[in-house]
Amino acid sequence: MSAPPPPRPAGTGPYRPTERTVPTRSPHRAAYDRDLVHAILDEGYVCHLGFVRDDAPVVLPTLYARVAERLYVHGSTGSRPLRAAGLADPGLPVCLTVTHVDGLVLARSAFHHSINYRSVVVHGLAYDVTDPGEKRQALDALVDHVVPGRAADSRPANKRELAATAVIRLDLTEVSAKLRTGGVNDEPEDLALSHWAGVVPLTRAYGTPLADPALPAGTEPPEYLAAL
Amino acid sequence: MSAPPPPRPAGTGPYRPTERTVPTRSPHRAAYDRDLVHAILDEGYVCHLGFVRDDAPVVLPTLYARVAERLYVHGSTGSRPLRAAGLADPGLPVCLTVTHVDGLVLARSAFHHSINYRSVVVHGLAYDVTDPGEKRQALDALVDHVVPGRAADSRPANKRELAATAVIRLDLTEVSAKLRTGGVNDEPEDLALSHWAGVVPLTRAYGTPLADPALPAGTEPPEYLAAL
Repeated sequence: MSAPPPPRPAGTGPYRPTERTVPTRSPHRAAYDRDLVHAILDEGYVCHLGFVRDDAPVVLPTLYARVAERLYVHGSTGSRPLRAAGLADPGLPVCLTVTHVDGLVLARSAFHHSINYRSVVVHGLAYDVTDPGEKRQALDALVDHVVPGRAADSRPANKRELAATAVIRLDLTEVSAKLRTGGVNDEPEDLALSHWAGVVPLTRAYGTPLADPALPAGTEPPEYLAAL
Repeated sequence: MSAPPPPRPAGTGPYRPTERTVPTRSPHRAAYDRDLVHAILDEGYVCHLGFVRDDAPVVLPTLYARVAERLYVHGSTGSRPLRAAGLADPGLPVCLTVTHVDGLVLARSAFHHSINYRSVVVHGLAYDVTDPGEKRQALDALVDHVVPGRAADSRPANKRELAATAVIRLDLTEVSAKLRTGGVNDEPEDLALSHWAGVVPLTRAYGTPLADPALPAGTEPPEYLAAL
């Protein structure tokens, strides 16, 4: 059972803050800009999906993809515990979080050590995707989220595979970003201390693609991999 | 209020699987080896901490550090929502998850696309750390977790800062790792398809340290940064 997919037109303007998307700590780091939220979501590979089972929280890493104002979360979360928690109407309360670590902030004081990061937190109700058309679109989005352009260059899922794959849907409605950027925030009286202070940037690095041994010798990686 | 810190001797042998640490999907990917779990935890910068508030899950990214068989989670989670959720006896049920993405797995079929990853999921009860000695040790561990050796090369927290920092404790008792490694798992009948298949490795890259502008000109980054 699942709720029918309601229309989700492309959103405009910032997300509307709610009680649970306004942080009580460092509220100046919160942001609701739609393009910023989309960019953070689109840059990640894995989200952390939280739900409640037997009154206790469960947080699982899982693949996801964004289609306009909707997120799709992949199959491994279709495992028994999540299903047991319930994905039928009125939907399963979830919290989906995506985080990028951009730098290590080394202050002169232990207290002001920090990291630069960008995160998005989405609250909402998750539903099982049962409509075959929507499921196929979601699976394409999941593949293209890993490598843009890849869905069109792979063998599409057949009926058996579609049936074996669970996809859940979460609308982008109650959403916030949180960011820490920039340099060190030391106390003025600490500036004369001799400790080095600064930021160590962190980025993601892609290694040389490792071809499957069963590929014919000399098969070149596709061009869309070069864009990574 | 907090429970007194019970002794946590260094553990030996694997973690004992429980009902909620044995996955119902891909159980062959689960692992309970203590050294493996420690290595995955120690390599991360940010964990995703889940707890329940008003019957709904909340998942927040936060700094953490491991000291033997205990995790400490940093301050921003000491924010009002988490405190409101309750950290006094008998402790707050949490789920703490750390994930590393190691590679993009491009199969010939859309269905077999995947990522290589290593994750650790910890279930348990979290407590507020109120003992000043334990709190100071935890803060040192948090700084050293970001950059090993850094705690000794920074100005220690003073009383005001210690009071302003919230730290919570979570013992490593109900713990599991989950991993996907290796290459592509295509169906035999797909091996002849012309799509490229293979793995794109992903790693973390450290950029050149950016010195705080207030540092005296010519101050060299410390040696322990070179180890990153």
